[in-house]
Amino acid sequence: MPHIPLPPGLPGIRGPMAFRPETAKPINELANILLFDPHSLSRGERELIATHVSCANDCQFCQTVHGAYAAHFLGDEALVLQAKVDPESANLSPKMKALLNIAGKVARSGKLVTADDVARARTEGATDLEIHDTVLIAALFCLCNRYVDGLATEMPESLEYFRERVPVMAQHGYRMTPPAGVTS
Amino acid sequence: MPHIPLPPGLPGIRGPMAFRPETAKPINELANILLFDPHSLSRGERELIATHVSCANDCQFCQTVHGAYAAHFLGDEALVLQAKVDPESANLSPKMKALLNIAGKVARSGKLVTADDVARARTEGATDLEIHDTVLIAALFCLCNRYVDGLATEMPESLEYFRERVPVMAQHGYRMTPPAGVTS
Repeated sequence: MPHIPLPPGLPGIRGPMAFRPETAKPINELANILLFDPHSLSRGERELIATHVSCANDCQFCQTVHGAYAAHFLGDEALVLQAKVDPESANLSPKMKALLNIAGKVARSGKLVTADDVARARTEGATDLEIHDTVLIAALFCLCNRYVDGLATEMPESLEYFRERVPVMAQHGYRMTPPAGVTS
Repeated sequence: MPHIPLPPGLPGIRGPMAFRPETAKPINELANILLFDPHSLSRGERELIATHVSCANDCQFCQTVHGAYAAHFLGDEALVLQAKVDPESANLSPKMKALLNIAGKVARSGKLVTADDVARARTEGATDLEIHDTVLIAALFCLCNRYVDGLATEMPESLEYFRERVPVMAQHGYRMTPPAGVTS
């Protein structure tokens, strides 16, 4: 049961976002810029960063919903499952491995990111913007994961929920008006 | 030295916010709603939550700048220093102690917040909105702390910098246009 009364029928982050639409709006705006707007990293790659961080933070709701988005855009569910826990051995580009390494460190603490981590990403072709956005996507999901779990929000009753969200998000992104279009 | 080239003369979060003003805007908007807009928790109390979380995450820049804001609004610098590390023994209301307990747990993991933690806050008079906003302020600063440290942003050369920011923020809040009015 959630720690505060939340609108029913809205699992995960959608409950508190409907409870407080004023704060939902900038969170969704930030998510949309980082994950959905045109970018040199593909939507699948950016959702993979979100998924990896949500897994590191052990947030079931976020890792499942963004994992479904990543699998949709990348067309490979098994790849996403492996990249959640062990990106270095997954079938990813060297650049994505280097960015996921940075994201995983940010999940624990920003202080863990070293100049060598960043140099590795740059050597593999990452731009300054890609490095910046990797850090900020990771930081945003440290927010989302804590928002979801800190209020003890509910998981959907069926995993089918996550598959049903995919075409909605793929078409509209994260900018829709709550409660219909909140971050998940 | 920051991990990516950032505009000079803008320490802490102001550097990456000037580098990427599109994402700075919703972060500042969220900070303004949570920390500056009218609320049943005072500005000083909300800045204290931000400061406590930034201290738990060992982010020097954020804990110093928001600690200065908290001390300004609460009129008590020693109280802020104590509340950063040991709120239970600080001269705070039972409600603020209960909310800082929740915020400190969110800083580590949202999953650590228990029904008893929330019941304690409610017994001490906290409303659902205050509990929600405490969790979200804590989550937001988990974002900010990682953004600041994950890019190895620079600290100001002098602590005077933080005192000079106080009247600017106290007058304008967090909604000003970057780079002049970013979160710090």
